[in-house]
Amino acid sequence: MYNFSYRNPVKLIFGKDTIPELRKEVPSKKHILMTYGSGSIKKNGVYNQVQEALNSFQLFEFGGIEPNPQYRTCMKAVEVVHQHNIDFILSVGGGSVLDASKFIAAAAEFDGEPWDILSKSVPVKKALPVGAVLTLPATGSEMNINSVISRKETGEKLAFASPLNYPVFSICDPTTTLSLPERQTANGVVDAFVHVMEQYLTFPVNAPLQDRWAESILLTLVEQGPKVLQNPHDYDSRANIMFSATMALNGLIGLGVPQDWATHQIGHELTALHGIDHARTLSIILPAVMKHQREAKKQKLIQYGKRVWDIDESDENKAVELAIEKTKSFFKRMGVPICLKDVNLTPDDCRQAAVQLGKRNARLGEHANITSKKVDEIIGLAA
Amino acid sequence: MYNFSYRNPVKLIFGKDTIPELRKEVPSKKHILMTYGSGSIKKNGVYNQVQEALNSFQLFEFGGIEPNPQYRTCMKAVEVVHQHNIDFILSVGGGSVLDASKFIAAAAEFDGEPWDILSKSVPVKKALPVGAVLTLPATGSEMNINSVISRKETGEKLAFASPLNYPVFSICDPTTTLSLPERQTANGVVDAFVHVMEQYLTFPVNAPLQDRWAESILLTLVEQGPKVLQNPHDYDSRANIMFSATMALNGLIGLGVPQDWATHQIGHELTALHGIDHARTLSIILPAVMKHQREAKKQKLIQYGKRVWDIDESDENKAVELAIEKTKSFFKRMGVPICLKDVNLTPDDCRQAAVQLGKRNARLGEHANITSKKVDEIIGLAA
Repeated sequence: MYNFSYRNPVKLIFGKDTIPELRKEVPSKKHILMTYGSGSIKKNGVYNQVQEALNSFQLFEFGGIEPNPQYRTCMKAVEVVHQHNIDFILSVGGGSVLDASKFIAAAAEFDGEPWDILSKSVPVKKALPVGAVLTLPATGSEMNINSVISRKETGEKLAFASPLNYPVFSICDPTTTLSLPERQTANGVVDAFVHVMEQYLTFPVNAPLQDRWAESILLTLVEQGPKVLQNPHDYDSRANIMFSATMALNGLIGLGVPQDWATHQIGHELTALHGIDHARTLSIILPAVMKHQREAKKQKLIQYGKRVWDIDESDENKAVELAIEKTKSFFKRMGVPICLKDVNLTPDDCRQAAVQLGKRNARLGEHANITSKKVDEIIGLAA
Repeated sequence: MYNFSYRNPVKLIFGKDTIPELRKEVPSKKHILMTYGSGSIKKNGVYNQVQEALNSFQLFEFGGIEPNPQYRTCMKAVEVVHQHNIDFILSVGGGSVLDASKFIAAAAEFDGEPWDILSKSVPVKKALPVGAVLTLPATGSEMNINSVISRKETGEKLAFASPLNYPVFSICDPTTTLSLPERQTANGVVDAFVHVMEQYLTFPVNAPLQDRWAESILLTLVEQGPKVLQNPHDYDSRANIMFSATMALNGLIGLGVPQDWATHQIGHELTALHGIDHARTLSIILPAVMKHQREAKKQKLIQYGKRVWDIDESDENKAVELAIEKTKSFFKRMGVPICLKDVNLTPDDCRQAAVQLGKRNARLGEHANITSKKVDEIIGLAA
């Protein structure tokens, strides 16, 4: 196991009917900006629950944050922050709203051009506090420091992370997810699944507990994912998925182990290029990464196949092949694409992703040896 | 899954040669009281490492904290705190030193008789900050709010927990554990194992990830425990055990699930009565609790047997029996006692434990239905 340092101060409030807890968690006397997305929270009652919980607070609002939140939108919110002396941001929605809120919180306090936080990795020194009501389990943003922001004009989708990004609290009420459309539900499960894979499917460093914890989340998603598609109103499955998605990316399973993230970095480019849903870029790219990196990842691929998919095959190459196939059939069962053809694209349509990563001199993967040329090969394998 | 709320702000610094990090973590300008135990840290070099890391700090010290730390000892430390205007406590040692340090930190700021914190559950409103260098993986105290203090004069061993008890940071360097005597090593593994069982071996509430995480820790301890007894200088095993022990009792696997703790409560009484090592009271009592509660715990006992011990037995009663037997043989392999006879005691010698719990009207277990009469039966089963 590698050395590590870990501190995660997020207060996670989890369960049925927990939104009224807002009243205790949001500091009174603050000017609160409630951020949200396309308005689904108005249909499912969450908007009203939040308004009711905070009816004695100074509450402003900023809606319309899109999936893959745009820099331009965030900067409009920053104006609202300054206009109303906002000093607390309450994100109500999924990972996109929360990622945007984290960026707004940092940008509002930033000296200079906030895009530099993303494009030049200029460190964030100050940020407004953010609290969250999560309505879509997927990104893990509710218990981590990550945020990913897009810029349509330049075709960029970039991430930043700062310890100042930890939400002060995150309220996860699985009942808010009961009405999620099938596509978003499936995307969320797949997103969480791939978050685990990025921290698990690398090479062994004798960290058996981290391995088993990662496999535990994978097994739970594999078991609960199809269940919830069949029975979307099953509270228990919704709760188990929501809990799994949070635990998939709050840092725990990644403690002291190597991490990959090649699939995510290539996926971000595909979203920037073609607007494919984030999770769907992952389900397209992960199998190709597994194939391309089959030698470097062999030991972990075999362990994964055995423990998650019960593969009992002594021929190592066949075991690896089966593990990749099982992953693809799980993605299929969740109704997400597993190759570019499934979204009517060819590798040629996506080569620009490799070019973009090349421009940033990206060297991806746990060995930092996946160059843009190899990204091109991976995209070829995703045909 | 039940609703839950979780916030764990401890900064966990884990790995080889991490003690020098103290310099960055301990607030400068503080009057620091370094607390420690019987002096083993002077033999294994940890004392010197701490002194060196903090050579420019105002460092006072208080040694001699015993296993099952005594109230009287803690109160002597409180005097030192007041005498030197101590405003930061640095615990260097195992769980006993850390439990004592947490109590000292609370008692020093307490209005009134500090024993009331333990005996009357008077809430702690203020406490000095505590940091930790952990040298013995076992109790999980390094990442939780628990503390257990004993009082020889009255034969009491009582616990308290306050959010103010979270260490500010905990440095866990597995190299400090390489020289641990076999007995302490084994005790630590067994203590962590039973911590998991207390949060896992109850009844199912459809929380598959929590279950799998608990089983992951059990599997890792079962695998790494005997390994480290065979090869005490194996850094990797020591690291895996240290990591497992912290994760066993930092709250995570207990989120949203019922918890038992009967074994611990009975065990505390046995330590108070007969001075048996804490972990050894657990290895004596747990099999008896499993037997006594076999019906109430049946589903979980079967799942545990299957997933942790690979028991493939369709007869439910036999499966339960085997699960209990496997647990006992693991404890035996770790060299700890599995019944009272192993420590030269009879149930009659221990009946006072039930009386003591009866006096406090204790109702133990996940159903809060284990009365002192049942405790007596359990002690009988532990013969």
